[in-house]
Amino acid sequence: MPEIAVNSARFLEDLHRLRSFGAHGTGVVRPAFSQPDIASRQWLAIRMADAGLNPVFDPVGNLFGLPADDSACLLLGSHTDSQPEGGWLDGAFGVIAALEAARASIEAGGPPIAVVSFQDEEGRFGALTGSRVWSGALDLAEADRLTDTQGTSFADARAAMADLCARDFVRADRFLGYVEAHIEQGPVLDLSEDVIGVVEHIVGIRGLRVCFAGQQNHAGTTPMAMRKDAFQGLVAFAERINETLASIVTPATVWTIGHVELKPNAASIVPGLADFSVQWRDADEVRLDRMEEIIRQTAASVAEEYDLKCTHSDYLSVPPTAISGPLRQQLETSAEALAPQRWRRMPSGALHDANNVARLMPVAMLFVPSIGGVSHDFSEDTKEEDLLLGAQVLAQAVASGA
Amino acid sequence: MPEIAVNSARFLEDLHRLRSFGAHGTGVVRPAFSQPDIASRQWLAIRMADAGLNPVFDPVGNLFGLPADDSACLLLGSHTDSQPEGGWLDGAFGVIAALEAARASIEAGGPPIAVVSFQDEEGRFGALTGSRVWSGALDLAEADRLTDTQGTSFADARAAMADLCARDFVRADRFLGYVEAHIEQGPVLDLSEDVIGVVEHIVGIRGLRVCFAGQQNHAGTTPMAMRKDAFQGLVAFAERINETLASIVTPATVWTIGHVELKPNAASIVPGLADFSVQWRDADEVRLDRMEEIIRQTAASVAEEYDLKCTHSDYLSVPPTAISGPLRQQLETSAEALAPQRWRRMPSGALHDANNVARLMPVAMLFVPSIGGVSHDFSEDTKEEDLLLGAQVLAQAVASGA
Repeated sequence: MPEIAVNSARFLEDLHRLRSFGAHGTGVVRPAFSQPDIASRQWLAIRMADAGLNPVFDPVGNLFGLPADDSACLLLGSHTDSQPEGGWLDGAFGVIAALEAARASIEAGGPPIAVVSFQDEEGRFGALTGSRVWSGALDLAEADRLTDTQGTSFADARAAMADLCARDFVRADRFLGYVEAHIEQGPVLDLSEDVIGVVEHIVGIRGLRVCFAGQQNHAGTTPMAMRKDAFQGLVAFAERINETLASIVTPATVWTIGHVELKPNAASIVPGLADFSVQWRDADEVRLDRMEEIIRQTAASVAEEYDLKCTHSDYLSVPPTAISGPLRQQLETSAEALAPQRWRRMPSGALHDANNVARLMPVAMLFVPSIGGVSHDFSEDTKEEDLLLGAQVLAQAVASGA
Repeated sequence: MPEIAVNSARFLEDLHRLRSFGAHGTGVVRPAFSQPDIASRQWLAIRMADAGLNPVFDPVGNLFGLPADDSACLLLGSHTDSQPEGGWLDGAFGVIAALEAARASIEAGGPPIAVVSFQDEEGRFGALTGSRVWSGALDLAEADRLTDTQGTSFADARAAMADLCARDFVRADRFLGYVEAHIEQGPVLDLSEDVIGVVEHIVGIRGLRVCFAGQQNHAGTTPMAMRKDAFQGLVAFAERINETLASIVTPATVWTIGHVELKPNAASIVPGLADFSVQWRDADEVRLDRMEEIIRQTAASVAEEYDLKCTHSDYLSVPPTAISGPLRQQLETSAEALAPQRWRRMPSGALHDANNVARLMPVAMLFVPSIGGVSHDFSEDTKEEDLLLGAQVLAQAVASGA
């Protein structure tokens, strides 16, 4: 295995240069296909070429940096588009760490490494659009009909960079696997003071939108016993799923009621309607099923008890993604060598491009800490030493696979 | 006591004529100071004059029909303005029943009776604006600065009927008391199949707006144990006040969480803020106090337990209104004579002009059933026989006070 060393100054300089596209205070405003996004991708293509990689934009704006020969290689990367108003490291860290790993490997005579920045991970047109199309999870014609909140279609948006893009997609069969480095976007590493997270699995997500319909009534003239209060149904539902789920979950399982709309939503009116989301995540498909059963049964029994009508809509289901054992082992060996006993195995609770890429090849992921667990916010940040360590762990792990 | 009999045909004809102003399907669109409201008041003034009463518009558009001489008399009435899109009986029933009682009493040689239609009971400019100003609860100059949702001031709105209005308010000291007949606007009579409700007390209202502030977080990457979920705080609060209040309330006590705003209110984000209303009503000021103590203590203890910040704003307090014993006795005697064992004592859970008038004189109220408990809706209705019975009970009750 070759000794591989990232060039810290070059890595940090590129990371800060990428931040300058769409810079806004400490964060960035660089949504997919915006002028700063396209400009940053053009700059990144040049940096890939500088590193001896062949830059290729695919038809949806995913930017690949490919080793000159056609030999099999690992693919490393993430995304460079940002939330509408986002942090500077979400996606960007993984792309620049990938570029640095590729450069460091070339310099050390290590294995060839390909680099990618997927397009629209942050979901101007849904979520993870670029990797969804590339992986075949989403048909291009279907993607083209997606629209953003302003009504612009994906087809019109990608036309803005059509002159940069190849007609064909990059073939996936040359890639041995995909490794994505990313900021954690949660509090676990920050609070545990571990500096590297090696992802054990990417959780699956289920979501249900539930509507309880009762009877809108005057809050003064309707006795408690005669009410069909949709909000009280929601309260009972929320309380009971907390109780029932507690006995079947792990400490990593999460469930959330994040969206609630009452109608008519007035202080003096008994709510006639409560429309709300329930979302749950776990790495185990069987547990996701069991949770779903509890959630659906609880909604039905609460509705019956409170004399409400219960309807569901907008069902969401993303299966858990398996992590490649060998790739994960390489990351763990590298983490233990560079940060002995300061790394941990952990789930990824968020979706990443790796979810889609897993349709095509083995995947693995590496996390660095998010200060205060903050992400999707201008104030998102990670200690410089942790960013450097993450890039080094990634580079050493992939070099060891040669 | 003179035998008094309402003229059913005349009563129903006037009630339907009033419905024709701003008629819309089965309901009415006749908000305060709208063209249909002013036109209906002009018509009502003529009907008062036809009945031998002296019609007087006061400076805010309250219309009084005063007996010709200055002798002391009872005042009967309600309001003729409607909700922006309202039912045909809310207010209108009480005003036409009052007019009919006054006419029937004159015809039977009974006591003189004054009639009133208050202005803006339905709250284009707040709530019960006409009776609030007349009773002295609200200063005219202050009322003039109130605005509707379109930004029109009360001063500008009342200018539209200024040419009809007297410069001075009607003196209250000639009135022996105020009796208001009204549709129940709730389900109690309809479900019990009683046809008359004699109001025992008008409840007091307290309201509090509470805000729980936690930590907005990613719903995938934030473990349950590390969350500060403001919505979960609301659930615990709602559940605990239900439990704790249950032991200190009566079947007539009500409490409502009718308004809830989460932020950012997205399915994939742990709610950082929950802003909600709590409103409670009871006839007993001591019980209102005790409920308030429980509500405030529960909010504080839930906030502490869930690591949330708790703030309050927009405190509302309307004291319970006492009902006159003698006037209520007259209504009960009349109800028992005309509908033996088919009437009941009950609280008024809603505010009425009687709340304000109680500042000036003894008050009492009479309810007729609302079909299905529905009000503030075009479909609001009451059986014709119940409307007639209500008018007759009112007329006989006030005649018996002579």
